[in-house]
Amino acid sequence: MKIRVIPYAAAVHPQEIAGKTTIIIDVLRATSVIITALKNGADKIIPALTVEEALETSKKLTPGTFLLCGERDTIKIEGFDLGNSPLEFRQSKVAGKTLIMTTSNGTQALNASRVAAKVYLGAFLNAKAVAEKVKQEKEVVLVCSGTAGRFSLDDGLCAAMIMEELSKSIPLRPDDLGLALAKIWQSENGNLQKLLKDSFHLNYLLQKGFAGDVDYCLQKNSTSVVPVFSGSEIILS
Amino acid sequence: MKIRVIPYAAAVHPQEIAGKTTIIIDVLRATSVIITALKNGADKIIPALTVEEALETSKKLTPGTFLLCGERDTIKIEGFDLGNSPLEFRQSKVAGKTLIMTTSNGTQALNASRVAAKVYLGAFLNAKAVAEKVKQEKEVVLVCSGTAGRFSLDDGLCAAMIMEELSKSIPLRPDDLGLALAKIWQSENGNLQKLLKDSFHLNYLLQKGFAGDVDYCLQKNSTSVVPVFSGSEIILS
Repeated sequence: MKIRVIPYAAAVHPQEIAGKTTIIIDVLRATSVIITALKNGADKIIPALTVEEALETSKKLTPGTFLLCGERDTIKIEGFDLGNSPLEFRQSKVAGKTLIMTTSNGTQALNASRVAAKVYLGAFLNAKAVAEKVKQEKEVVLVCSGTAGRFSLDDGLCAAMIMEELSKSIPLRPDDLGLALAKIWQSENGNLQKLLKDSFHLNYLLQKGFAGDVDYCLQKNSTSVVPVFSGSEIILS
Repeated sequence: MKIRVIPYAAAVHPQEIAGKTTIIIDVLRATSVIITALKNGADKIIPALTVEEALETSKKLTPGTFLLCGERDTIKIEGFDLGNSPLEFRQSKVAGKTLIMTTSNGTQALNASRVAAKVYLGAFLNAKAVAEKVKQEKEVVLVCSGTAGRFSLDDGLCAAMIMEELSKSIPLRPDDLGLALAKIWQSENGNLQKLLKDSFHLNYLLQKGFAGDVDYCLQKNSTSVVPVFSGSEIILS
């Protein structure tokens, strides 16, 4: 299988993913949140690029059937029901609900992926399960969402973990970024605590008081839930 | 020192490098060629984005004082004096000459860097010397040129080597891509043969018959020549 890794959302060019199978990765925290929400019974997630778009979408839905979710600079958007902390997305809150969600990086990557043939969402939580979904493909593009237009190592290492899961059943031909990330992963046997010690976004979340979220998002293979994005909404695949 | 690493030329956003000290890296082969040309006595290099721009520039110069140089898909441009093989840029050819040069990736990165405060050119050939030039700065942006809009591991490892040279005299605060590349570099103690074994661009050049160029460009610290780009031309710093 040919593997291409995109370093951050702003670096996605439509022609590179048009017609291809992609996995969007935003470990801290959008894809971890979406996986958790669907696991806990949310009906679907509608991503929105902006707060205005989220509010606009909410006007078309019946009150009580949806929740407005999202963050800017890690903090819950004012007036919204939920932020971007996976620990908030409990069954009692989200079961049966439509979640309208806007986040700083993850929803940008989703928006850029509309031209892809299939768009799955991956994180450490479901790395093995998402690898299983795509293992018949000839080519997969792993889109690391990154942080504010920059490469984020947590997303890159999740790409490496998905590659490792894939490589257990099929030979891979990764591009140079894929090769580099696999090398880093192997250098510490996938020990995330060691590998992410000095990384920017993780430390930023710790500073902001989100240590619980970080611990949660770095759990590996805790679920077999794999979200899929249809171009307008995200549901269980 | 704060270190930022840009994964490929097309990913350079002007606001990220405006007013900053940058090092442009295109190991295979543009910056290795330019370093070699200046070492061998070339007067200056004028980068051109397109073949047409190169020909236009040449019309303003006195015949006999300049050489047209460059490649597309690794091969010398038809009618040009030299291609993009550093072994061609011998003293007998280039001494005292102005070189008008257009390459697939390196000149794109140079063009994007016009808004930077200072632009040096780096490769394995001058990694130690280019690190020496910037070691007083508070922040340095390392621009990996990449190949055809993708990250290229040879450029990334050169960024890692420049960081290693810098870290001998000052503490570094690299961004996540910088952290990742430093980790890969350390995993094999900078052994380029091992680290680049499966990388795309290196193997592409080998297939095209450029093994001599590859061996030449992977030499470390063979010269103290550091080219600097003024926004219109490249000269010895």
